[in-house]
Amino acid sequence: MSTNSGATNVFWHEHAVTKAARVARGGNKPAVVWLTGLSGSGKSTIANELDHQLFKRGVNSYVLDGDNVRHGLNKDLGFSPEDRVENIRRIGEVAKLLAGAGFVVITAFISPYRADRELVRELLEPGEFIEVFVDCPLEVCEERDTKGLYKKARAGEIPEFTGISAPYEAPDNGELTIDAGQGTPADCAERLVTYLEESILTKPQ
Amino acid sequence: MSTNSGATNVFWHEHAVTKAARVARGGNKPAVVWLTGLSGSGKSTIANELDHQLFKRGVNSYVLDGDNVRHGLNKDLGFSPEDRVENIRRIGEVAKLLAGAGFVVITAFISPYRADRELVRELLEPGEFIEVFVDCPLEVCEERDTKGLYKKARAGEIPEFTGISAPYEAPDNGELTIDAGQGTPADCAERLVTYLEESILTKPQ
Repeated sequence: MSTNSGATNVFWHEHAVTKAARVARGGNKPAVVWLTGLSGSGKSTIANELDHQLFKRGVNSYVLDGDNVRHGLNKDLGFSPEDRVENIRRIGEVAKLLAGAGFVVITAFISPYRADRELVRELLEPGEFIEVFVDCPLEVCEERDTKGLYKKARAGEIPEFTGISAPYEAPDNGELTIDAGQGTPADCAERLVTYLEESILTKPQ
Repeated sequence: MSTNSGATNVFWHEHAVTKAARVARGGNKPAVVWLTGLSGSGKSTIANELDHQLFKRGVNSYVLDGDNVRHGLNKDLGFSPEDRVENIRRIGEVAKLLAGAGFVVITAFISPYRADRELVRELLEPGEFIEVFVDCPLEVCEERDTKGLYKKARAGEIPEFTGISAPYEAPDNGELTIDAGQGTPADCAERLVTYLEESILTKPQ
């Protein structure tokens, strides 16, 4: 037998670092800036611009987008309605973890269903979920077609493509709408920073 | 039609914040300290102690354990061999995201299969994965039985319980073994800190 079976009597004091302690050390409130909009609306570019601007201010920010989620955590998921739900659910849970670590998480996913976005809102603490509609007309997204996906969707090569053969439900009660056709992505990010300055970029009292 | 269709001509400059930039701003190298061992071996308590000690040093550290993963991201998974594989895969991907944000991630999961842990190692950059065997004899874990799970497993109420009715594969080539029967969890965490001091708790050159 082991010599250490007496360890059952050890007082196991849990020194968990609380979310409040992490936040107090940082310079900002945790938040999830949830960008939603059509493919090609500029979500990912705006997210990276915002991340860059927040980083320069010393904020702990981080982008979750297709690049680091669809090819990793969610690589087992497709684009069926069920898989889209699960995709957003997992992203919401990861965003919650990062917010728990004190981060301003910026997500850039089409996230077409209102109900899924609401589920993420409910995962988070009041005020943490900032739903941003990256508003860009379908015609503009399709004209840009940065990844050539609209062309393929119109040709029937991509099934269930949001805006073409699958629905997109715009937020009806989100925190902010960004007109993604006005100005550059950097301009859009500046507008977001202005919004965030008044809400989360201040040390919690 | 929209007035902004000219946006196709906008030069979309991506200002992504690189992992190197995040790490340079922090005071430590990113890492995943992966604690593996039987239920009741002390993984979660040691993880929280380590987190606390690292936090006090100003390190961005974060614990992933059953409390914040099994009830959230992985709440759809059970304990079958396939679900255990998927459980560890997702945790590995989330740990990778957090390491990408500059964190020292501390994970506390039984993670009984050697192959799954190796998959996580392969997800990460060389030197980032620090596999720590929290070594505690089954008899001791069962005697502690902090959650009453061994009793239920012996009674056949919990199927596929690691160490009783499911295998545990100890690391054969891990970075560190902690004798979890020696000293308190705080002592174990101190030993880990000493190890990490020489590897990751220094500013990258």
